[in-house]
Amino acid sequence: MTTPINRHPERARTEVEELHRLLDDVMDGTLVTVTDDGRPWVVPMLFARDGDRLLFHGSTGAGALRHVAAGAPVAFSVTTIDALVVAHCTFEHSANYRSVVIHGSMTRLEGEEKWTALDTVSDRLLPGRVAEVREMTKRELAATMVLALPLTDWTMKARAGGPGATEEVHEAWTGVVPMRTVYGPAIPDPGSADRAVPASVRRLIDTD
Amino acid sequence: MTTPINRHPERARTEVEELHRLLDDVMDGTLVTVTDDGRPWVVPMLFARDGDRLLFHGSTGAGALRHVAAGAPVAFSVTTIDALVVAHCTFEHSANYRSVVIHGSMTRLEGEEKWTALDTVSDRLLPGRVAEVREMTKRELAATMVLALPLTDWTMKARAGGPGATEEVHEAWTGVVPMRTVYGPAIPDPGSADRAVPASVRRLIDTD
Repeated sequence: MTTPINRHPERARTEVEELHRLLDDVMDGTLVTVTDDGRPWVVPMLFARDGDRLLFHGSTGAGALRHVAAGAPVAFSVTTIDALVVAHCTFEHSANYRSVVIHGSMTRLEGEEKWTALDTVSDRLLPGRVAEVREMTKRELAATMVLALPLTDWTMKARAGGPGATEEVHEAWTGVVPMRTVYGPAIPDPGSADRAVPASVRRLIDTD
Repeated sequence: MTTPINRHPERARTEVEELHRLLDDVMDGTLVTVTDDGRPWVVPMLFARDGDRLLFHGSTGAGALRHVAAGAPVAFSVTTIDALVVAHCTFEHSANYRSVVIHGSMTRLEGEEKWTALDTVSDRLLPGRVAEVREMTKRELAATMVLALPLTDWTMKARAGGPGATEEVHEAWTGVVPMRTVYGPAIPDPGSADRAVPASVRRLIDTD
């Protein structure tokens, strides 16, 4: 009970490239820790990969973030469903997915490293946006907490491909139905109706 | 530290309708429990809402599922990101989202109720598919565990709308960029290339 379910060992994926691709394809995950009274504590979080670590940000007023910032063991889970797998019977139906659970402890970033990390997070969530807007103020920086989680202890699982072969004779259609996230159309605020949609937003919509 | 972060009380949503809509819009979430040695244990799970409960299924061979089936306290988290919120500065950037964390204990379903629940799960993941394929066999039923989690103890959070008003004078474009999941095109297995795409799959692709 100390490792995630892995009842399909052939699905195990340990390659770092696949890990990075998953973490670059998805922008949110689920942060988990254990409360002082032993109960599971869970919160969804946006994140950004920065090399061999994940970055998180939040308000300095968030008590729960301070708890994990103090070094409590955490798990962070990221999942994407890539396709539905349609088989000849419901028992063989499945989903293609990629998933990772990362275990570790958070480190709180400060000073210049914190500033740089916040720009990294912003440019991950909307690439190119940092260059389009004014710099952060010192006050904004002070109001924000930035945490880093190293990509050292992780378990990735994935399923790909169609339904497995069957010896059963059947006439059902079988195959896969891919799923993906698309962006847009952009909805301007009333005050921005006459302003050009910025390159960052245009790229996001064009390349989905 | 016993409740989720909620530093924006105005975002609290307790309406059951919104809960149901979220749980009907998303097909996967993150199941969390605490191991015997006090560490967080996390696994992504498909689920289906069935009235006032969630249904989960998995192999009877999965030890971790048996652990939660035995009544260990769990949390189940479901999140969707609905839009990016583009503001005049990165500090005010945000994401529109809907999220729920459900606490409780699982009940293992058996007999007729288990059979019905499995059809409910199958028809949630691909509506109409159950009627298109043969019935489950007793052997398949016996190999599958079905668990139910009541929707009684839950906390929903959401953000909607554009960036907040600012008194700062700026010329930046601001607004929101919606995100959504689309399905298709369907990719048939080689043996299905000449078979008609079933109504269940066509509906999924047409209505995304």
